[in-house]
Amino acid sequence: MTDERFMDLALSLGRRGLGSVWPNPAVGCVIVNGARIVGRGWTQPGGRPHAEVVALAQAGEAARGATAYVTLEPCSHHGQTPPCAVALISAGIARVVVALGDPDNRVNGRGIAMLRAAGIEVVTGLGEAEARADQVGFLSRVERGRPMVTLKLAASLDGRIATATGESQWITGPEARRQVHAERMIHDAVMVGAGTARADDPSLTVRGLGARRQPVRVVLSRHLDIPLDSVLARTAKEVPVWLIHGDRAPDGVVAAWEGLGARCIAVPVVLGRIDVAAALAALGAAGLTRVFCEGGGGLAASLLAEGLVDEYVGFTAGIALGAEGWPSIAAMGVGALADAPRLELVELRAIGGDVLHRWRAGPSGAG
Amino acid sequence: MTDERFMDLALSLGRRGLGSVWPNPAVGCVIVNGARIVGRGWTQPGGRPHAEVVALAQAGEAARGATAYVTLEPCSHHGQTPPCAVALISAGIARVVVALGDPDNRVNGRGIAMLRAAGIEVVTGLGEAEARADQVGFLSRVERGRPMVTLKLAASLDGRIATATGESQWITGPEARRQVHAERMIHDAVMVGAGTARADDPSLTVRGLGARRQPVRVVLSRHLDIPLDSVLARTAKEVPVWLIHGDRAPDGVVAAWEGLGARCIAVPVVLGRIDVAAALAALGAAGLTRVFCEGGGGLAASLLAEGLVDEYVGFTAGIALGAEGWPSIAAMGVGALADAPRLELVELRAIGGDVLHRWRAGPSGAG
Repeated sequence: MTDERFMDLALSLGRRGLGSVWPNPAVGCVIVNGARIVGRGWTQPGGRPHAEVVALAQAGEAARGATAYVTLEPCSHHGQTPPCAVALISAGIARVVVALGDPDNRVNGRGIAMLRAAGIEVVTGLGEAEARADQVGFLSRVERGRPMVTLKLAASLDGRIATATGESQWITGPEARRQVHAERMIHDAVMVGAGTARADDPSLTVRGLGARRQPVRVVLSRHLDIPLDSVLARTAKEVPVWLIHGDRAPDGVVAAWEGLGARCIAVPVVLGRIDVAAALAALGAAGLTRVFCEGGGGLAASLLAEGLVDEYVGFTAGIALGAEGWPSIAAMGVGALADAPRLELVELRAIGGDVLHRWRAGPSGAG
Repeated sequence: MTDERFMDLALSLGRRGLGSVWPNPAVGCVIVNGARIVGRGWTQPGGRPHAEVVALAQAGEAARGATAYVTLEPCSHHGQTPPCAVALISAGIARVVVALGDPDNRVNGRGIAMLRAAGIEVVTGLGEAEARADQVGFLSRVERGRPMVTLKLAASLDGRIATATGESQWITGPEARRQVHAERMIHDAVMVGAGTARADDPSLTVRGLGARRQPVRVVLSRHLDIPLDSVLARTAKEVPVWLIHGDRAPDGVVAAWEGLGARCIAVPVVLGRIDVAAALAALGAAGLTRVFCEGGGGLAASLLAEGLVDEYVGFTAGIALGAEGWPSIAAMGVGALADAPRLELVELRAIGGDVLHRWRAGPSGAG
C-alpha cells in the first residue's frame, strides 16, 4: 500500500467521530510498521482519547520506527492529557504524515515543529482537501467562531414543506427519513425554529442507527413559547436541549426550562427576529462545530439571507401541494436575481421514491 | 442481429418523428433481408409518407421475402394514400414484426388481419412497452381524446419561478435552457398561461437545434388579453399561434388575433378559469398528441389538480429566492396530503449546474 491508501484509511476512520466529539475535531490515525498496519484510532465520543493515543495503544512496541498517518496536526498543548506530539515522540514513531495543519492557536504548527525537533520526518498536505472537507465544522468554529451549518429541507416538487393545514407527515418516504437520521448523527446538534417545534412536537433524536451520542437539540424561540409539556421539554434531562431565546424572554419561563434540564442562551433580537448570526456565535462559543438545521421556513430564510448556510440537503418528493402549502423558505428580502444566494451541486441521487440533492456554498457562505 | 435488435432500431428511428408528425403517430420501420438491413424509414414531417412506405421505397426489390419491423400496426384504411398493410403485401414482404397494435378504430387489428390474410407471418408484442411509451401522446388522443401533457417547471431550490418583481432570466443555466428546447422539439405544441405570455413575452420556438417543424404555440387566456404587439402576435403568420380563450372573450379581439394569423378556440370558463380539461380536449380534436406546458403557476396548478399531467420535468437551480418569489405551482385546493397528486421518478441527472428530474403519473394521470 502507498501513503495515499493509508491516509485514505485514516480519513475514513476519522469520519467515524463526526457528530460525537465536539468541541474537538474528529481525527483518524493509522500506524504502519513496514507494510503492516499495527494501530488504528479515531477520536472517541466526547473528544477523548485522541486518535493518536488510541492507535499508539493498539500498536504498543510495534510503534517504534513506524509511520503514523494523522488527518490533523497532532496537538502540542497540555490539556487534560499530555499532547499527542509528545505521545508520538515517546512511542518512537519515525515518520509522521499529516493531512492538514491545525489552525487552533494553541497548535498552529507547533505540533509539527515538536515532531521535527525530535528528529521525526514529517510529511504534510497529503489528503489535505478531503481532511479540510471533513473538518469544515471544526475549522469554521476556529476560524469564524461559529459551527458549520447544514440546512435540510424535505419538500414537495413545488417547495412546500406542509399542506395549508400544516400536515407534513409524510411528504418524503421512509428511505429519505432514514437518511435524515444518518445526517443528524454526523452533526453535533439538530436545530429548528420555534414554529417547527410547536407544529411537529419533534424529538429531534437519532433513531434506528445505534447512535452512541445523541446530538444536542437546539430550538430558536424569541419568546420561549414552546409548550412545557412538549417532547423536548419532557426529555431535556436525557438528551440536551438548548434554547436560544431573545434577550427579553420572561425570566419565569427561562427558569422553568432550566428546571426541566434545558440550557437557555439569550441573544439579541434584530427587527423582531432572533439574530441568527449571534445565535450561531453562541453555539460556537458553547463548543458546537456542526449544526444540522431542519427548518422551518423562517429560520431557513434567515440563515440563507445572512449567508450562514454551508451545505444544503434537499429531499424532493414527487408530490405537488400548491401555493397554499407552507413554503420551505420564507420571505428573504431578495431584490434582484443576482443578489439571491447561489450554491453548487455536490451530490445527486434517488433515495426511495424521492430525490436527494446536496449543494455547497462557496468558502464565504451561501451568496 | 436478432429480432430485438432490429426492433430497437425501428423504435429509435420512430422517435425521430416525435413532435413533427401530428396528428399521426411517429412510427419507425426497418426492413431486413437475410441478415442485411435493406430499408429504414420513419414517419415524415407532417405525418406523411408513413414509415413503411419510406422503408419499402429504400428496399426496392430487396423487400421481396424480407422481414419488416414496424413499431405500430400498419394502417389498413384508405386515406390520402393506400394503406401500409397493402404496400407491405404488394412489396412481397414475407414476415412482419409489430411492436404495438393501433387502437385507432379505423385500424384496431385490421392491419394485422390484412397481412395474415395475405399469407404473411405476423409477430406481435416485441418492444411493446417501449412503443407504448413513445406513442403515449398518440394513444392519449385516440383513447382519452386529449394530448399527453408534459409539465416543465424551472425553479429555485424553494420552488420559485421568478423573484417578487418577476425576474426569471436566468434562474437555470444555459445547459438546462438548451434541454428545454430539445424537449419542445419532441412535442407538437408548447403551451403557457396568459400571465407567462404577458410577463415574459416569449417566442416559444425551438432554437439552436435545427428543428424542421416548429411546435404550435398555445396560450390559454380567458380574456384574450395578450398584447397585440407581442412576439407571439408579430410571428403568428410564421409559426402557428393557437389561443384558447373563454367563451365570452370580446369578438373584436378574437377577430384581431385571427387577422394576425392566430387560431382562436373558445372553451367554457368554470369558476372564473378556463376549463383546462375542455382546453385539452379541443387541442386533441385539433390533432395535437403531445403538449409541453411551461407554466406559469396558475396553469400548472389547474393541470395538476385535474390529474391532467402525464409527465413532469423539473429543472432545479442552486439558488434560494424566498417566499416573495412567484410560486411554481399556484393554489391547488389540496386538502389532506393523501389527496395531493403523486408522481413517480423516472429520470434524474445533473445538467450544467442544475438538476433535471423527470416524473411520471400513473395511467390515470397525476393523482
